[in-house]
Amino acid sequence: MTRIVVIGADAAGASAASQIKRRRTDWEVVMFERGQITSYAACGLPYWVAGQVPRQDMLIARTPRQHRARGIDVRLGTEVVGIDPRASSVTVRTQDGQESIEGYDQLVIGTGALPVRPPIPGSQAPNVATVHTVPGTQDLVDQLTRSGSAPRRAVVVGAGFIGIEMAEAFLDRGIAVTVIDQATHPMVSFDPDMGAVLAESMADQGVACAFGQAVREVELDEAGLAQAVLTDAGRYPCELVVLALGVRPNTGIAIEAGLPVGDSGGLLTDRRQQVRDHEDIWAAGDCVETYHRLLRTTVHMPLGTHANKQGRVLGLNVAGEYATFPGIIGTAITKVGTAHLSRTGLTEAQAAQAGFDAVAAKVQTSVIAGYMPNPGRMITKVLAERGTGRLLGGQIIGDRVGAAKRIDTLAMAIWTGFTAEDLTGADLSYAPPFSPTWDPVQTAARRLLPTI
Amino acid sequence: MTRIVVIGADAAGASAASQIKRRRTDWEVVMFERGQITSYAACGLPYWVAGQVPRQDMLIARTPRQHRARGIDVRLGTEVVGIDPRASSVTVRTQDGQESIEGYDQLVIGTGALPVRPPIPGSQAPNVATVHTVPGTQDLVDQLTRSGSAPRRAVVVGAGFIGIEMAEAFLDRGIAVTVIDQATHPMVSFDPDMGAVLAESMADQGVACAFGQAVREVELDEAGLAQAVLTDAGRYPCELVVLALGVRPNTGIAIEAGLPVGDSGGLLTDRRQQVRDHEDIWAAGDCVETYHRLLRTTVHMPLGTHANKQGRVLGLNVAGEYATFPGIIGTAITKVGTAHLSRTGLTEAQAAQAGFDAVAAKVQTSVIAGYMPNPGRMITKVLAERGTGRLLGGQIIGDRVGAAKRIDTLAMAIWTGFTAEDLTGADLSYAPPFSPTWDPVQTAARRLLPTI
Repeated sequence: MTRIVVIGADAAGASAASQIKRRRTDWEVVMFERGQITSYAACGLPYWVAGQVPRQDMLIARTPRQHRARGIDVRLGTEVVGIDPRASSVTVRTQDGQESIEGYDQLVIGTGALPVRPPIPGSQAPNVATVHTVPGTQDLVDQLTRSGSAPRRAVVVGAGFIGIEMAEAFLDRGIAVTVIDQATHPMVSFDPDMGAVLAESMADQGVACAFGQAVREVELDEAGLAQAVLTDAGRYPCELVVLALGVRPNTGIAIEAGLPVGDSGGLLTDRRQQVRDHEDIWAAGDCVETYHRLLRTTVHMPLGTHANKQGRVLGLNVAGEYATFPGIIGTAITKVGTAHLSRTGLTEAQAAQAGFDAVAAKVQTSVIAGYMPNPGRMITKVLAERGTGRLLGGQIIGDRVGAAKRIDTLAMAIWTGFTAEDLTGADLSYAPPFSPTWDPVQTAARRLLPTI
Repeated sequence: MTRIVVIGADAAGASAASQIKRRRTDWEVVMFERGQITSYAACGLPYWVAGQVPRQDMLIARTPRQHRARGIDVRLGTEVVGIDPRASSVTVRTQDGQESIEGYDQLVIGTGALPVRPPIPGSQAPNVATVHTVPGTQDLVDQLTRSGSAPRRAVVVGAGFIGIEMAEAFLDRGIAVTVIDQATHPMVSFDPDMGAVLAESMADQGVACAFGQAVREVELDEAGLAQAVLTDAGRYPCELVVLALGVRPNTGIAIEAGLPVGDSGGLLTDRRQQVRDHEDIWAAGDCVETYHRLLRTTVHMPLGTHANKQGRVLGLNVAGEYATFPGIIGTAITKVGTAHLSRTGLTEAQAAQAGFDAVAAKVQTSVIAGYMPNPGRMITKVLAERGTGRLLGGQIIGDRVGAAKRIDTLAMAIWTGFTAEDLTGADLSYAPPFSPTWDPVQTAARRLLPTI
């Protein structure tokens, strides 16, 4: 009987396992998970912290029991500690320390990512958290909801996606929050001018912003709890610290096994998610590098939507079908209260670094027809290659629903190699409650035309 | 001196005039307008009726004074009653009945459309309105806000875009509204199954729906005012009737002048908006037929966004530059209260009529991540060609902001000839407050795959 071993039971691993088992009901699919939880929505953790998602179990897309009902052999509390590609086997260790060897015909690696935790003095204190796993986040939620001694002030270190989402979460909880970042503006995956707009909105909404300063130390009290964060520019008292400094691929055992990884440490695969030069090993999700269609190289871009898509593609291929993951262009979206922001393609800095001669245009418009009630405000920036007019990137920041998701139009345009002029002519939907007569992305593209 | 004559001062005409004058400051640009108003947002009229747009002047994008400040010679109350292409002149008539001949070097026709008013007995009563012009809509708003004798019950005849928007307007005003249509479901530009979802939502929201019945007569009271609408199935008492039976191109003088028109009566132009076989005559907006990229023929699709884009293209060409309007694929969006709906491409009936062998898939999802507060509900339907998988159409109906505008992703996919599989891989934005992990349009496309 064909035996599939899956390492990791979240977005990528569980999607793959489901696809395989559904198509190959007679195959044995064993899914090893070192924790106790399967298929949880990691992207939803900040909203659980915020109290918007009231219960942990709402974040679970499929429980171990549900996976088992579909015929997947889920082994919880079981960590894979070694891979032997020559022997086609993995070494697993259960919680009681027992180790055993498990053979496979095909191996699926979905080990995800680990939060970056630089060696900041004091950062191991129990009230210094990361928002990455369900148990870790449960601990944070417990601290926030502890009657009598809930924190009044929080510091978030890092102003990337998770960092600003945590800022929103603390605003929602009514906890004073300071966000610290080494960069001079939040969200370095955006251009500085767009980051500045975000910073202004965050400040307006009551987030204390401490940008352009490096964290030196987490100051501890006598009980060993964090009581302030010290940077090279100031001291920020708090009762809670969240480290949101990004993640790195969780590929230690893969690297030990000699599997190929890129600069980020993410596994290298082909478009079918097969690990390069290993016909019986596959990988998907936050543990792999993914082909960036504009940069023409692989990058580490951990996102739940990619993990799900790659897991599906992987599963189809393992099951004997043919599917490919076509790569990414860096599309992303999030919000901090009323600041909704999104991006796709390259920033000005990325474009320059990749050797593009880029021109940019930025327009401020209403989100819907200007004469409607609460028309909102949005800033739309687009980048194109000088000379050819080929679109290279886009960024949006807007103050109401309907602004930021419009990035998908730009993403589709960039995905297919549209020029700015191509985009101005596309037949997009218009009605006063939904858009100005010219969709803002088209207004921005039109503004680019004379500069190309 | 080069003299440009523009007929009509709304979306198409005024956009064209502005483009020309901006680029050719030394040219004389004369814009004839039979009414007193320029550049008004026709699409906004229902929201003025609803009371959402409080004042008429908010719908005016540019007043005659503003046009004149930009050097355009606006002649209000001046109707063009004849075109003589051989003599390169038009005959104009002022409100006092004076006629004169005005020569042109280039003529721009932006005469728009006229509401369809079939010869229904009684339909000329003063409380039977169309929502098409500012003065006509002002009259309707006056009736609605007349103290003491404001109507309590309204009947809307026609369940197309304007008809259902008027239903919403009356709901907003707290006026009981009945919508009558000959078709068995509202919005025949959608598939019947999607129309049925809309009908259910309209009924839930308190709109009385009388579908599948033909209007026979508007019953008048002794004072000559409409007091009911009679159909072949019932009698609907009311104090106000709105006819929303669509529009037809306003091309009487163009046809008299021998200019080429299509089956709808809309002028036929090339992609630069030049009227076919007439090098010095141009046309844009609701008075022209437009190339439909999927049907591969011209159709009459009056929409403000097309009029603006075509007006710009026309103006650039007249001014000596080169620009084209690339055609349409039938993208449209609107709402009735909490029912937000959008469409692009072909319906099942249109696809069959055009000779496509189409397959369809329909999915019901949340609008944002299902574990978030108020995740909403949306139904997304996609059509593709059997065998090739090429996307042919899409329709969305959803109950919160962020659902219907997603049609733009489908529009971009169809515009560029994506297959359903292409769409499943595209890098669209995802975060829990904005979307499920798989964007619903991708979930729908994925659902199509096995049927192709």
